[in-house]
Amino acid sequence: MTSEANRQADTVQDMLVRISEIEVFPEYLQEYLSFALTVGEISVREEPGVIAIFPMIQQRDSCQIRILEIYASREAYKHHIGTEHFRTYKQGTLHMVKSLDLVDMTPMNPLAMSEVFRKIPLRKNE
Amino acid sequence: MTSEANRQADTVQDMLVRISEIEVFPEYLQEYLSFALTVGEISVREEPGVIAIFPMIQQRDSCQIRILEIYASREAYKHHIGTEHFRTYKQGTLHMVKSLDLVDMTPMNPLAMSEVFRKIPLRKNE
Repeated sequence: MTSEANRQADTVQDMLVRISEIEVFPEYLQEYLSFALTVGEISVREEPGVIAIFPMIQQRDSCQIRILEIYASREAYKHHIGTEHFRTYKQGTLHMVKSLDLVDMTPMNPLAMSEVFRKIPLRKNE
Repeated sequence: MTSEANRQADTVQDMLVRISEIEVFPEYLQEYLSFALTVGEISVREEPGVIAIFPMIQQRDSCQIRILEIYASREAYKHHIGTEHFRTYKQGTLHMVKSLDLVDMTPMNPLAMSEVFRKIPLRKNE
């Protein structure tokens, strides 16, 4: 590998990639979605170590939420769960969550991560 | 919404977002990973309608593969499964796959997709 490829491999090696699998009680779904959306947006905007938070709703069961989360490092994740906005989300939604499974993942090809996401459509003012 | 926001909402509305949940027989794992990596890379590179294919391996069970797939539209997906590279992957891995579940998802905030992925580190020559 070139030194640039090495550098990039190190960067990606440090990352924490996770799919959070969350089941929400149906009566709290709308309220939960609002909390989840808010914390994701604030985290990506304000925390340099939060690379991406991409929350999705299962089409066949809207109480099943999946969140793809990418942090720059385990330290960045630790910082994230200590922030005011994360604590607000966590405390505010505890009673809404039926089950929670934090599933850590290894990207199959870390070096291609930029390739993988480069075609996501950007807003015109970016 | 502004007309630009409307246009973007329409673009994202058309997208097909999916998490493919795949369990591979352990004896075929390495061979499967090679097939999956190849088809993902070729598809994103050669097919304009394949926005992103991000394959991941569960850390707690390496036979559990999850692939985040984003297609520009259902038509783009139909085109994808008709390509030579997809057919090679599908036929070549049929006997390696213990179970397969294609789980269609709705992004919680489609308008923020560009925000969500903009911090993915890019290669220097991009």
